[in-house]
Amino acid sequence: MRAEIITIGDELLIGQVVDTNSAWMAQKLNEHGIELYQITSVHDDREHIIAAVDGAFKRADIVLTTGGLGPTKDDITKQVLCEYFRTRLIEDGRVREHIYDLYKDRPDVLNKLTATQWMVPEHAVILPNRVGSAPLMVFPHGPQLLASMPGVPYEMKIAMEEQILPYISRQYAVISGRDSVSPIMHKTLQVSGIAESTLAILLEQYENEIPSSIHLAYLPKDGIIRLRLSSYGEMTEEEMNLWYKRLKTLVSEYLIAETDEPLEVIVGKMLQAQGATISTAESCTGGKLASLLNKHAGSSAFYWGSVVSYDNSVKQHVLGVPERILETYGAVSEETVCIMANNVRKQMNTTYAIATSGIAGPSGGTAEKPVGTVWIAWATPEGTTAECFHLGKLREQITDRACTKALIGLLRMLQVRR
Amino acid sequence: MRAEIITIGDELLIGQVVDTNSAWMAQKLNEHGIELYQITSVHDDREHIIAAVDGAFKRADIVLTTGGLGPTKDDITKQVLCEYFRTRLIEDGRVREHIYDLYKDRPDVLNKLTATQWMVPEHAVILPNRVGSAPLMVFPHGPQLLASMPGVPYEMKIAMEEQILPYISRQYAVISGRDSVSPIMHKTLQVSGIAESTLAILLEQYENEIPSSIHLAYLPKDGIIRLRLSSYGEMTEEEMNLWYKRLKTLVSEYLIAETDEPLEVIVGKMLQAQGATISTAESCTGGKLASLLNKHAGSSAFYWGSVVSYDNSVKQHVLGVPERILETYGAVSEETVCIMANNVRKQMNTTYAIATSGIAGPSGGTAEKPVGTVWIAWATPEGTTAECFHLGKLREQITDRACTKALIGLLRMLQVRR
Repeated sequence: MRAEIITIGDELLIGQVVDTNSAWMAQKLNEHGIELYQITSVHDDREHIIAAVDGAFKRADIVLTTGGLGPTKDDITKQVLCEYFRTRLIEDGRVREHIYDLYKDRPDVLNKLTATQWMVPEHAVILPNRVGSAPLMVFPHGPQLLASMPGVPYEMKIAMEEQILPYISRQYAVISGRDSVSPIMHKTLQVSGIAESTLAILLEQYENEIPSSIHLAYLPKDGIIRLRLSSYGEMTEEEMNLWYKRLKTLVSEYLIAETDEPLEVIVGKMLQAQGATISTAESCTGGKLASLLNKHAGSSAFYWGSVVSYDNSVKQHVLGVPERILETYGAVSEETVCIMANNVRKQMNTTYAIATSGIAGPSGGTAEKPVGTVWIAWATPEGTTAECFHLGKLREQITDRACTKALIGLLRMLQVRR
Repeated sequence: MRAEIITIGDELLIGQVVDTNSAWMAQKLNEHGIELYQITSVHDDREHIIAAVDGAFKRADIVLTTGGLGPTKDDITKQVLCEYFRTRLIEDGRVREHIYDLYKDRPDVLNKLTATQWMVPEHAVILPNRVGSAPLMVFPHGPQLLASMPGVPYEMKIAMEEQILPYISRQYAVISGRDSVSPIMHKTLQVSGIAESTLAILLEQYENEIPSSIHLAYLPKDGIIRLRLSSYGEMTEEEMNLWYKRLKTLVSEYLIAETDEPLEVIVGKMLQAQGATISTAESCTGGKLASLLNKHAGSSAFYWGSVVSYDNSVKQHVLGVPERILETYGAVSEETVCIMANNVRKQMNTTYAIATSGIAGPSGGTAEKPVGTVWIAWATPEGTTAECFHLGKLREQITDRACTKALIGLLRMLQVRR
């Protein structure tokens, strides 16, 4: 089964908003055995929306749209879809009740514009949006269907998980008489420490041997290459696993993870499994490493805290790096970063600590320590080690890569202890 | 002049990568007076790429593609474009030299796959990619053109700014005999403390009066609504400014910013203008606030550091919140958050400090303090204030909104002092 996504909103096409919805939706579709063929972003414009819907129905069974469902004048998705599917808006009592309940503490919001939200297309299936005022609409279209959801990410996510995906699965089971669709499988390995082209040469014979029903992709980012094997329902899981194992053997020297999970999740699980805790002392990464480590639910089990010591006075007075160390070696040095890691580990009483100090730029670089120079230290019960990296020239790239290097270093230590 | 973007890569359509390129490119195109009509994401697949390019050429003058230019087997953009434009690959000596130079310290990368990178289409204009091995290609297509760039964000950004946009501007000036295209103008106001529908009713008359050559959009996110006026080259800047000023007067009560800059940038500029500095003490936001404050170049002028006190032991031992306060009032309380703000302000010796403590969930909520409860405190030279917020039910939403509330609070204080 094949789907397409149409994201509707001028804000996407003038670059005011990054479309994070589509990637999330793509993952969920794949998990449900539905292939996503194309993503199209269009303006809040009648002709443009109609052309995109028309095009998508030529290629896909399921069309998912997000956006354009607000109560304001610029949002026209509901009206345009009514026109496209030749139906009209009628009042829906259940939606009205839900909206009254949603705004029971904010009577000022129950105005005439909000009232337009309980007008729904007569010939659409209306599904509840428990966290917002725009109702979810499913338009049947012969054997195909179009589902329309809000563009606000958390509303869309709840809509997809609780309403749209179960609805699609049910419909599909009814039509095909099957309980589930053939699985789309993706299996990912993460490797580090090898160039993409060198890796491809290492895998040349393997790539020549894999059947055409399996596909190998290379995804390099921040010093990690994700190797993904994909199969679109034409292969058994056992066969897929054999190819996956062969791939793993071939890249074992560079392997850092056997799943597609973000590094911080893999590290978090290993820390928890070992009953270990972590703290961080961050200069150039400025809280990004802390933020990564506690991004996911359950992080309070292993993540204690961080001292972000952006200014040298904080390195000195909060982290206890002696003034003479900062003066003699500088803030970006092995000496400073090791003391930062040791001291935050002691202060926060954790098993491990990571410290970063570097020159994220654009200014502050010297001939000896150019922009992109980053020292990272890992303090462990066995002692402290540090390494110097050169991570590029752009601020965001440098801090992202520094977080990746910090986590890879920790991961390697945790793997040894396992 | 109208452009479209085609992003090429299976990783986008299985949700392994979020497309951040398109929003950035859209902004740059708009700054150059080029309207972005559509963004289409397609698979690394010959027929799919050809269909997308064909479709885009029916609607737009300029087609920009990203991705699919790596040296590995899964990347086929260059070959497919060669076929589409009926040309063939030939060796390019300048590209070869550049690649030799790029990998001069890594001779292992100069392998036969890397060698495919200096094969370029005979009938394309080849522009240099100074940070990567894939050459930039511009294919003339009658009065139209297609430009192909790598998908790696920092390579794409440098390619757009240094090569593709200047090339397009030059070409357009030659064809039209004009030096620049008519400006596309976007002007944004940011408001807070009013519901979207209530705001729309407040602006009802205004919306009825604005000419059709101007467009008003509402973009709600994390408790802020961005109001954007757009004009696509059919209005003078003076006229646009008049409508903008009227809008500003109408929403003055809720206004928090007169530009589209992120809040942290606005706050950073005001802190710098006032010669003030800031530190943060973060529990539920876990370093996100710190990370926002130092995300942009130049932040070391006003941002000193943060103590991320995720665990209570860190609140007690590093931030000095007395044990009996934590026991009596709990970590998520006015008392705790005020002491956190005061103490980090003293420890880091800054003008201001912000502290956050809340329940980000999914677990940890109680009847009295449900998930989403967040206390925020602002410590200033005049004293410390705190406020309690209820910021939803989802972890990411709660921490994002808490950062926004923290910054809005600080902004209001800075505006009073101005």
